[in-house]
Amino acid sequence: MDVVEYRPERDQYVWTFGGVAPSHRITPGTLLRLWTEDAFSGRLTRVTDRPGDVLDMTEVNPQTGPFYVEGAEPGDTLALHIVDLTPARDWGASSTIPFFGALSTTDRTALLHDPLPERTWIYQLDRAAGTVLFEATSADVRLELPCNPMLGTVGVAPAGREVRSSLVPDMFGGNMDTPEMKPGVTCYLQVNVEGALFSVGDGHYRQGEGESCGTAVEGAMDVTLLVELIKGAPAPLWPRIESDTHYVVVGSSRPLEDAWRASQVGMIGWLGELYGLDRLDAYQLLTQISESPLANVVDTNYSAVTKVPKALLPAGRAYNGMHTHLREQAATL
Amino acid sequence: MDVVEYRPERDQYVWTFGGVAPSHRITPGTLLRLWTEDAFSGRLTRVTDRPGDVLDMTEVNPQTGPFYVEGAEPGDTLALHIVDLTPARDWGASSTIPFFGALSTTDRTALLHDPLPERTWIYQLDRAAGTVLFEATSADVRLELPCNPMLGTVGVAPAGREVRSSLVPDMFGGNMDTPEMKPGVTCYLQVNVEGALFSVGDGHYRQGEGESCGTAVEGAMDVTLLVELIKGAPAPLWPRIESDTHYVVVGSSRPLEDAWRASQVGMIGWLGELYGLDRLDAYQLLTQISESPLANVVDTNYSAVTKVPKALLPAGRAYNGMHTHLREQAATL
Amino acid sequence: MDVVEYRPERDQYVWTFGGVAPSHRITPGTLLRLWTEDAFSGRLTRVTDRPGDVLDMTEVNPQTGPFYVEGAEPGDTLALHIVDLTPARDWGASSTIPFFGALSTTDRTALLHDPLPERTWIYQLDRAAGTVLFEATSADVRLELPCNPMLGTVGVAPAGREVRSSLVPDMFGGNMDTPEMKPGVTCYLQVNVEGALFSVGDGHYRQGEGESCGTAVEGAMDVTLLVELIKGAPAPLWPRIESDTHYVVVGSSRPLEDAWRASQVGMIGWLGELYGLDRLDAYQLLTQISESPLANVVDTNYSAVTKVPKALLPAGRAYNGMHTHLREQAATL
Amino acid sequence: MDVVEYRPERDQYVWTFGGVAPSHRITPGTLLRLWTEDAFSGRLTRVTDRPGDVLDMTEVNPQTGPFYVEGAEPGDTLALHIVDLTPARDWGASSTIPFFGALSTTDRTALLHDPLPERTWIYQLDRAAGTVLFEATSADVRLELPCNPMLGTVGVAPAGREVRSSLVPDMFGGNMDTPEMKPGVTCYLQVNVEGALFSVGDGHYRQGEGESCGTAVEGAMDVTLLVELIKGAPAPLWPRIESDTHYVVVGSSRPLEDAWRASQVGMIGWLGELYGLDRLDAYQLLTQISESPLANVVDTNYSAVTKVPKALLPAGRAYNGMHTHLREQAATL
Repeated sequence: MDVVEYRPERDQYVWTFGGVAPSHRITPGTLLRLWTEDAFSGRLTRVTDRPGDVLDMTEVNPQTGPFYVEGAEPGDTLALHIVDLTPARDWGASSTIPFFGALSTTDRTALLHDPLPERTWIYQLDRAAGTVLFEATSADVRLELPCNPMLGTVGVAPAGREVRSSLVPDMFGGNMDTPEMKPGVTCYLQVNVEGALFSVGDGHYRQGEGESCGTAVEGAMDVTLLVELIKGAPAPLWPRIESDTHYVVVGSSRPLEDAWRASQVGMIGWLGELYGLDRLDAYQLLTQISESPLANVVDTNYSAVTKVPKALLPAGRAYNGMHTHLREQAATL
Repeated sequence: MDVVEYRPERDQYVWTFGGVAPSHRITPGTLLRLWTEDAFSGRLTRVTDRPGDVLDMTEVNPQTGPFYVEGAEPGDTLALHIVDLTPARDWGASSTIPFFGALSTTDRTALLHDPLPERTWIYQLDRAAGTVLFEATSADVRLELPCNPMLGTVGVAPAGREVRSSLVPDMFGGNMDTPEMKPGVTCYLQVNVEGALFSVGDGHYRQGEGESCGTAVEGAMDVTLLVELIKGAPAPLWPRIESDTHYVVVGSSRPLEDAWRASQVGMIGWLGELYGLDRLDAYQLLTQISESPLANVVDTNYSAVTKVPKALLPAGRAYNGMHTHLREQAATL
Repeated sequence: MDVVEYRPERDQYVWTFGGVAPSHRITPGTLLRLWTEDAFSGRLTRVTDRPGDVLDMTEVNPQTGPFYVEGAEPGDTLALHIVDLTPARDWGASSTIPFFGALSTTDRTALLHDPLPERTWIYQLDRAAGTVLFEATSADVRLELPCNPMLGTVGVAPAGREVRSSLVPDMFGGNMDTPEMKPGVTCYLQVNVEGALFSVGDGHYRQGEGESCGTAVEGAMDVTLLVELIKGAPAPLWPRIESDTHYVVVGSSRPLEDAWRASQVGMIGWLGELYGLDRLDAYQLLTQISESPLANVVDTNYSAVTKVPKALLPAGRAYNGMHTHLREQAATL
Repeated sequence: MDVVEYRPERDQYVWTFGGVAPSHRITPGTLLRLWTEDAFSGRLTRVTDRPGDVLDMTEVNPQTGPFYVEGAEPGDTLALHIVDLTPARDWGASSTIPFFGALSTTDRTALLHDPLPERTWIYQLDRAAGTVLFEATSADVRLELPCNPMLGTVGVAPAGREVRSSLVPDMFGGNMDTPEMKPGVTCYLQVNVEGALFSVGDGHYRQGEGESCGTAVEGAMDVTLLVELIKGAPAPLWPRIESDTHYVVVGSSRPLEDAWRASQVGMIGWLGELYGLDRLDAYQLLTQISESPLANVVDTNYSAVTKVPKALLPAGRAYNGMHTHLREQAATL
């Protein structure tokens, strides 16, 4: 098994999907051991830091990559298996950012209010307990919350010659900010350009569904990935995720109902591929078994998730058993 | 404990929140043993039934009630504890309905497409196994799905002199269609008119999050409720639900992000009441712990849910321990 | 010609569509000479008045009516011709209202901001010049704006047993807040209940498209209407307006694209009725000739307008020439 | 005055904003005489042509340019004055395209319907009469519609390292598809990258407000532009347009209310710059004078327009009289 290790220096951070030369060329089957900087590019470290003072909004969500996958062609499907996510620091940060967040006026939901106040929270990580510590400033509330590492941003170069900011989620994946992107899952992405050119970043030590204020418990992350390439399968269109327990589709758009509709139609397609159900039967089945946890309602596009539990379904072999194959491989590491 | 039993006859069904005389006057503390007809008013019984032929769309979601609660005044909070929900028939029904559903053109998302085809599914209930049976028509797929009874519709008379169809969810509750409305929870609703005038209906034997096609596994239900009245608490504005494990707020509006925002701001208010957190701290905490499963994306208003797990929070006593009190009472029955 | 004059006393104001007994029973062909109070129920009279202090939000948009039209049955079409609108006072008022308006957080677009400041503007009417005077407080800007009287609220009792606040626009008409509702036009509304039970109110001396802050130049109005009833025509579904120069359809929903889609599909239907165009041809023609001025982006539902200019179309006879007939009748008064 | 003439060959067409080398380097003050191919890249020429057969959806909206403006730096404002638009062919084309258009399911408003039927309309141009001819296929309707040439797409390279498809409108301008972009207006765009790198394309011989089916009367265009650069003015954020009669701001986002809100807040800012009004006074004035014709409800982002008539306002000198200056220059040509 080829193994590539990569810890980008600050001048190697990448801020877009598409538009930059690959950091590495890898073959399908490669194991990646990566490090990703946090969404704030490491600039928010104390509760007294104000995003408006220390952040450069054109340099957030730094990506590690992109990786050129040998043999990947438009129409192929890239499989990224998250073997492990381990916090690379002993603390994470979160903050309200002016004119950003689901419950704030923004450049899109443009209203006449002044921005909400800026406040920064630092979460100390307790590795033994597996928790991060929330500390309120307005009341005597300190809460140990489970540390659930995930990647906010996983994506390939977009279709149609586009280059998109690493703040954006869309069909190419990107900043989907869903807690589903966690260790043990396989993410399937449609290849749009030769080499796929995927990258990852924006590690979260923990995130609620919706990422209300726009920033999770953001933290640098040690990321272990297995990379595979699938030829000859129908292109997934929207990003798909497979875990041991669920099939997941992520749709990203606005308004939020359109993001969700995209994920639903995507899942109806997947159920059809897996079980031969026609559109109406798959629609009906989905109506009764869909889990619909929101991902984020804060990014340039909102992201909504449709999940179905494998336990309720017949045995299926998505992508010819790719997820099981990658799980087995990961177990040997 | 006062006990009221009520199985409305067909001519006693109620189709609105507000605008009708109470079926009963009850005192706080009353136990209700009710029967509710299914959302189709019992008119869809076979897979060959077509909604367009057999349904009268002005007579769907029949309500049992309304109940006038003695002493209830505007600004009070009504507490409805769902002691038990038991399917009252051995089968449930679901169907695609022309110009209805999340993935169909509707009278609002008005497009130029012909309606999707009508199809009806009948789910047989296996009481011993606790399952309902999904049977596809396009493939040889039969799936036993857990029976998870819930109420689609729980509401009081609206504010502002309005009378709303039992198809509508809004601040008064109504057709929220959330799987959170299940046995063991307490629903808190703001009283808008003297007597509160609440009713229930639209039992589901099972529903996915989002209720994609617009109809769950719809079935008649035996409903056991405990009714209490809370004086002197801040009005909840949007419906709240408390279970042994979660605090829940349901927002209903369009677009879907607005429904979710309402539930989020509602939860921030509740966290403030419970723990003294200011808006920013509650916003931050919610960002990291919110569960955001969609309720429905099909009704006149969409309904979105914000949940927080009690296990992550300090001990709280919402409404002075009302839920615990009702749980204990229910345990004595 | 029957003539009915009516100036309601304060205790005769009506706050809903549906749910109240008619003020009058009239026959088709009746001329109505009405007076309507302003949207603030006359409570905002000076620039020092603060809506939060003086308004009762359950008593805004008072309606004059409702009128029971003899012979009107569900499925019929009511034709209301606006003969004249004359300001009944020499001033109008506008104001920012906390948590209301298109560029403010509201109970639906629920954010964490404090409300925008309250400010009240009084517009003096110059009857000779036909203008109202805008006076800024933050700069030395005084502008004479044309007085263009219109009715914010024209509606019938809703379908489905509902009763809706006079703040709401929907299929029944209501608080559409469109500058199209001006002297010389005929408004066609689908009759939902026996007698139609229509009412009018919410006069504006002037309003921009979108009614950004939520309140136009609000003023009491002398209203002259001709009432007719159309039997046997296809029900219009969404409100239609005919002027000497345009056909207009008003859709009301959220998000705003759905309001507009409803008005577009409504117009495609009307073009089909008028000229025998099929859906695709009408869609194409509309694509090239639609005028799409927004009505309001502030009410419970947003209202969007689709207009087509008669000058670009073949001669048509909507409703068998009803508008021309009513124009001629009005000319004799 | 420098004059540059440019008629790109097919292999010189550009499909994005950003991401391509300039076709020309020009100085401020240059006159451009350009030719733009139609949105279909000239591939739709007969009513029997089906978009699904003849179009390559990655090669639509070909741009002429981009032009590097010497001296243009981020934060500057580019002024493009449209001196003249003359149809370059004697016919234009429009079509329904599968899964595209405001009244069709799309990849975003993802529903389960089959696509609407494809149909193509060819509009013959009568240069003498100044009309284009609509010919229905479903009825005997032929209509001479005024030819009102406009540009669908005018934009600069985006901020944040992004490259966007020429189908997209956003802050950088792009595919706004507004009838306001017509001869005699000046468009102000915020410069995001050195040289601005603007391009134009997507000529329409006529378009309704909203561009319902997604394609106007699309036609090749001879375009005459004057280019100027403004230093030291506040960046406009969203595209602004000035005509002899109106100030216009175009917002582009989803849902449609957010596009409109962006245009409204943009106009409030402009009114503040022009007249010193504070936010509340500008909000109030806009409420009474805004014209809000929709631009398109079909693109990747929807575009909404806020216009205010100069006739109602005090004399103003936007950008130090730039529009008047360019009008005068154009008059000398």
